[in-house]
Amino acid sequence: MHKFSIGVLGASGYAGRELCTLVLQHPAMELAFATANSQSGTTVRLAGRDIVFTETEKAPFKDAELVFSALPHGASAQWVRQAATGGAKVVDLSSDLRPGNGDGATAPYGLTELMREGVTSASIVANPGCYATAVLIALAPLIKRGLTLPGATISISAASGVTGAGFTLRPDLLFAEVAEDFRAYALGNEHRHLPEMRAIVKALGGDNDLIFVPHLLPVARGILATITVPVREAITNPLEIWEQEYAGEPFVEVTSSAPSLRDVVRRNVVRVSVTNAAQVRQPTLIVIAAIDNLMKGAAGQAVQNANLMLGIPEPMGLPL
Amino acid sequence: MHKFSIGVLGASGYAGRELCTLVLQHPAMELAFATANSQSGTTVRLAGRDIVFTETEKAPFKDAELVFSALPHGASAQWVRQAATGGAKVVDLSSDLRPGNGDGATAPYGLTELMREGVTSASIVANPGCYATAVLIALAPLIKRGLTLPGATISISAASGVTGAGFTLRPDLLFAEVAEDFRAYALGNEHRHLPEMRAIVKALGGDNDLIFVPHLLPVARGILATITVPVREAITNPLEIWEQEYAGEPFVEVTSSAPSLRDVVRRNVVRVSVTNAAQVRQPTLIVIAAIDNLMKGAAGQAVQNANLMLGIPEPMGLPL
Amino acid sequence: MHKFSIGVLGASGYAGRELCTLVLQHPAMELAFATANSQSGTTVRLAGRDIVFTETEKAPFKDAELVFSALPHGASAQWVRQAATGGAKVVDLSSDLRPGNGDGATAPYGLTELMREGVTSASIVANPGCYATAVLIALAPLIKRGLTLPGATISISAASGVTGAGFTLRPDLLFAEVAEDFRAYALGNEHRHLPEMRAIVKALGGDNDLIFVPHLLPVARGILATITVPVREAITNPLEIWEQEYAGEPFVEVTSSAPSLRDVVRRNVVRVSVTNAAQVRQPTLIVIAAIDNLMKGAAGQAVQNANLMLGIPEPMGLPL
Amino acid sequence: MHKFSIGVLGASGYAGRELCTLVLQHPAMELAFATANSQSGTTVRLAGRDIVFTETEKAPFKDAELVFSALPHGASAQWVRQAATGGAKVVDLSSDLRPGNGDGATAPYGLTELMREGVTSASIVANPGCYATAVLIALAPLIKRGLTLPGATISISAASGVTGAGFTLRPDLLFAEVAEDFRAYALGNEHRHLPEMRAIVKALGGDNDLIFVPHLLPVARGILATITVPVREAITNPLEIWEQEYAGEPFVEVTSSAPSLRDVVRRNVVRVSVTNAAQVRQPTLIVIAAIDNLMKGAAGQAVQNANLMLGIPEPMGLPL
Repeated sequence: MHKFSIGVLGASGYAGRELCTLVLQHPAMELAFATANSQSGTTVRLAGRDIVFTETEKAPFKDAELVFSALPHGASAQWVRQAATGGAKVVDLSSDLRPGNGDGATAPYGLTELMREGVTSASIVANPGCYATAVLIALAPLIKRGLTLPGATISISAASGVTGAGFTLRPDLLFAEVAEDFRAYALGNEHRHLPEMRAIVKALGGDNDLIFVPHLLPVARGILATITVPVREAITNPLEIWEQEYAGEPFVEVTSSAPSLRDVVRRNVVRVSVTNAAQVRQPTLIVIAAIDNLMKGAAGQAVQNANLMLGIPEPMGLPL
Repeated sequence: MHKFSIGVLGASGYAGRELCTLVLQHPAMELAFATANSQSGTTVRLAGRDIVFTETEKAPFKDAELVFSALPHGASAQWVRQAATGGAKVVDLSSDLRPGNGDGATAPYGLTELMREGVTSASIVANPGCYATAVLIALAPLIKRGLTLPGATISISAASGVTGAGFTLRPDLLFAEVAEDFRAYALGNEHRHLPEMRAIVKALGGDNDLIFVPHLLPVARGILATITVPVREAITNPLEIWEQEYAGEPFVEVTSSAPSLRDVVRRNVVRVSVTNAAQVRQPTLIVIAAIDNLMKGAAGQAVQNANLMLGIPEPMGLPL
Repeated sequence: MHKFSIGVLGASGYAGRELCTLVLQHPAMELAFATANSQSGTTVRLAGRDIVFTETEKAPFKDAELVFSALPHGASAQWVRQAATGGAKVVDLSSDLRPGNGDGATAPYGLTELMREGVTSASIVANPGCYATAVLIALAPLIKRGLTLPGATISISAASGVTGAGFTLRPDLLFAEVAEDFRAYALGNEHRHLPEMRAIVKALGGDNDLIFVPHLLPVARGILATITVPVREAITNPLEIWEQEYAGEPFVEVTSSAPSLRDVVRRNVVRVSVTNAAQVRQPTLIVIAAIDNLMKGAAGQAVQNANLMLGIPEPMGLPL
Repeated sequence: MHKFSIGVLGASGYAGRELCTLVLQHPAMELAFATANSQSGTTVRLAGRDIVFTETEKAPFKDAELVFSALPHGASAQWVRQAATGGAKVVDLSSDLRPGNGDGATAPYGLTELMREGVTSASIVANPGCYATAVLIALAPLIKRGLTLPGATISISAASGVTGAGFTLRPDLLFAEVAEDFRAYALGNEHRHLPEMRAIVKALGGDNDLIFVPHLLPVARGILATITVPVREAITNPLEIWEQEYAGEPFVEVTSSAPSLRDVVRRNVVRVSVTNAAQVRQPTLIVIAAIDNLMKGAAGQAVQNANLMLGIPEPMGLPL
């Protein structure tokens, strides 16, 4: 099988290492380079192979047919452009080119199941944020069908494992600070994924406001989003809507029981359940979605998008 | 100082042991007996003292001036009556006598800060559920002032440490099942604390529906409730409402930053913060409350109520 | 490829489920039946497939070419015999047929790297205990070469994740009891794996006593054994001994830095490091070994043995 | 009661904050200043009080009757001297003045139960390391009685929670790196507490070599040390030796069952158990000791020493 030559920028973080691991195990990809400025020269063992991180500045972009950028937000866009100039296709895992970011420059959004056509034909794709992936896959079936109550507020309470914050030396991410704790964050200064969610809800035809409260969980990986959505009228068997929407999708699992992190960890899936809220006058659905923030929420979906962009079968190399 | 003679029923569970520990360290209480049918005859070391559990059937009720019942839901009411018949005052930590339970027999509800008068004069008090304590302390200031949007749905996403489920041999409470996981529960069959919350919201004059989604956290203790409340109109400085409501209350802490479990663990407090949701047409507040489910959510509040019932200073013997 | 028909007895425990998962993913195996008396009739999802547990009594032994027994110690031997009578080869994960168990009936011991010949020709194999696997792989190179100090005591301090205790409803295995704790166990009543270790040390020509102190770790999976071994004389470069012994072994990793649980979790390997103790008159080595107790310590090694017994390439179907 | 004026240097770390908390709650102490260069100007809430960290350079040493230094190893000694010059008594929690450190300058060693006289009369005390406290309290009864096998090696396997490494921004202390892991460390470069242990063993009359392997536990607090000690001859009831040695000591608990972290966390105690190793030709004891590394292993023992130095009752202000 032809092996596409792949570069990874920002390879030393949690998402970057996950990307390298997926690329190394992918039947149709080979890793051309992996950059990590702060750890340039360091050797790490991933998927049974020794990988040496190089400097992003010295990345041989012309050797790569596709480049993943897991560089930090703000630092990524310039390297995405440089890689694209060299002729490589690019999947950008940062928020730099996602919709809703305000500075105008966006790329096609890579929420694969909902935007497959745009991804397939794109030369650059903006990979969705982890929270946005869980929330939008959960909400899209209602939004697309115009079933949400117009103008109503959708309330999203979500919780993420600490790898969601990246491989970052912050005191609040130390073991002794996170263990046995649980807390909301980003209440004052809006979370980076919220504009992105708003933009896509609108793009799908939704007319709803979003409240989004993220929390930090004492686990390494995984996101669970619990969403209450007012709907136009009572829906007798709401699960059917999601089953219909995602029929045949290998990476979306619609279940009658509420999903949990261990259902999805280390797998490239979104798992969704839906129930009707009881004893409420305004019919409201409770939608719960779980993902692995590093897989379907980052590296896994990035590879899923790359597969489409390279004409490889979409599920190839992805852990189910 | 006079030491009141205290009995504890159902003393071997998490709440029961916490109760015994508080009683043993309380300047104005002494432990007359501690029952635990399944562990009758067992000696445990609590607060530096060896306590022998006895059978509930053989509890010398007449020796106790006040009895705490931490017996299971359904099994508690009969012993509460028996203790009361013997002349003891009783604080019942089960749900048997709480409002909203449907079979009619209720006792004054012991959400201390809101129902101090009723508690002080009661001979039997129904101690609130842990989730209900966090949620109702958080919501009461709005409800009492009629500030919530009439008829609107209040959405409560809450998460509890595993001791909230009691000292119970359930496979889903084993370490290897809970660690690194997070999940919602009680979606199909309504949580026991929800009727109680509904009843009190109504009693306080509220006309709002409640959606309540509890989650299981991989921590031992603590509850965090994240609540979105539609309000009549925009409130510029919402924190002032809670500060006003709870001024002078030693066991309610109103804070500008979002509370976390480690702010409250092993302390008999509710910690609450409030912020306005951003970019929503319907003005909505995000209220977050944290408690230790075994302290303010169970044993601590029970002692707080007992102090009132016995004429002891309310804060005595309670960890701040 | 021919698919061997495989039965799993005691499939509902942690090791049993891991076995079923490995069998389902194995290119040369297919799962004929999976029994679990306590959960007979239950459907579980493993490796993307729905498996229905049946009763051990009704297992169609004649349909299986090989049977794994993950039944409890004491209950396994009779079913091993029954399966063997029906013509199946058997790998027994219980301690019933391991050496050192005292009642005489033993089967060839399946510590694969050290006893490959015996395993290959056996119709029944006693799969080693998890602690024994880590400790014996770590000690064998010294014992076989006669390098330990004759008559000296080898001191083993080991720690295991809670799945090592099986999927068992014991109060001391509840999340709230294990989290934030660490303790030694089995000090009074000797651990089941110790006679097994003693017997194999002796069988390999060793003349050393063993002290073994197991501890319970607040993690789900993994064993780390830290072993101090007095040796005849100073050994300048001890790592070479292990490198020589295990050259070409895919499932033993000899490393210069101390192994950790995350190096081995979900992989069928033993990882070993060795260093000289400093400033001691009696030359002594510190050997550290890490395994995943459910993989190389149970299900993985069982499949490794089954591969040999069935004439399949030894590493097939095993996660490296 | 007279309140002694106390200064704390290096107050922002885990031990420093624990010290401040103990001082604030101590009936006979008041906190004069708390320094923390990296966080100078920061306000933290401890024991219900707001404390502002100041610069160590500007500490008003003349205002303090006793100073605790929780400054880093290497940086502490100079400030200890400066505080002492100003007339304050000093308890140094760093390793700078402990025996075995090689550069000659040592202060009386503050392992309180074993060196009470020296502490009481000292103006400067070197507070023991956390591992050393657990190990030496465990070993001293045997060493002092000359019961260990002369010349034999004592093997110490110990494990610590992450606060033992201090409040330090190291990648290996991040939650996602520590959770679900367990590993030995400091194998190549000797641990700082080992020279200290060797020096005290010798000072107590011991002629034994020590092997010490520390491990990192996925818990916040606590140390468990598992020690195998060859003895001259079999000892029938070894527990009596420890009971005799520590009779009347409030901060040493000798128990027949093996201690665990949760027995000691947040308490200023060492808990010790002893058993005979079974089936070994060389009689050997297994001694297990547990402490809270921040209490008896640091701040608690420091206050215990300060109490003696100031003529305050030794147990005052210490959590039992």
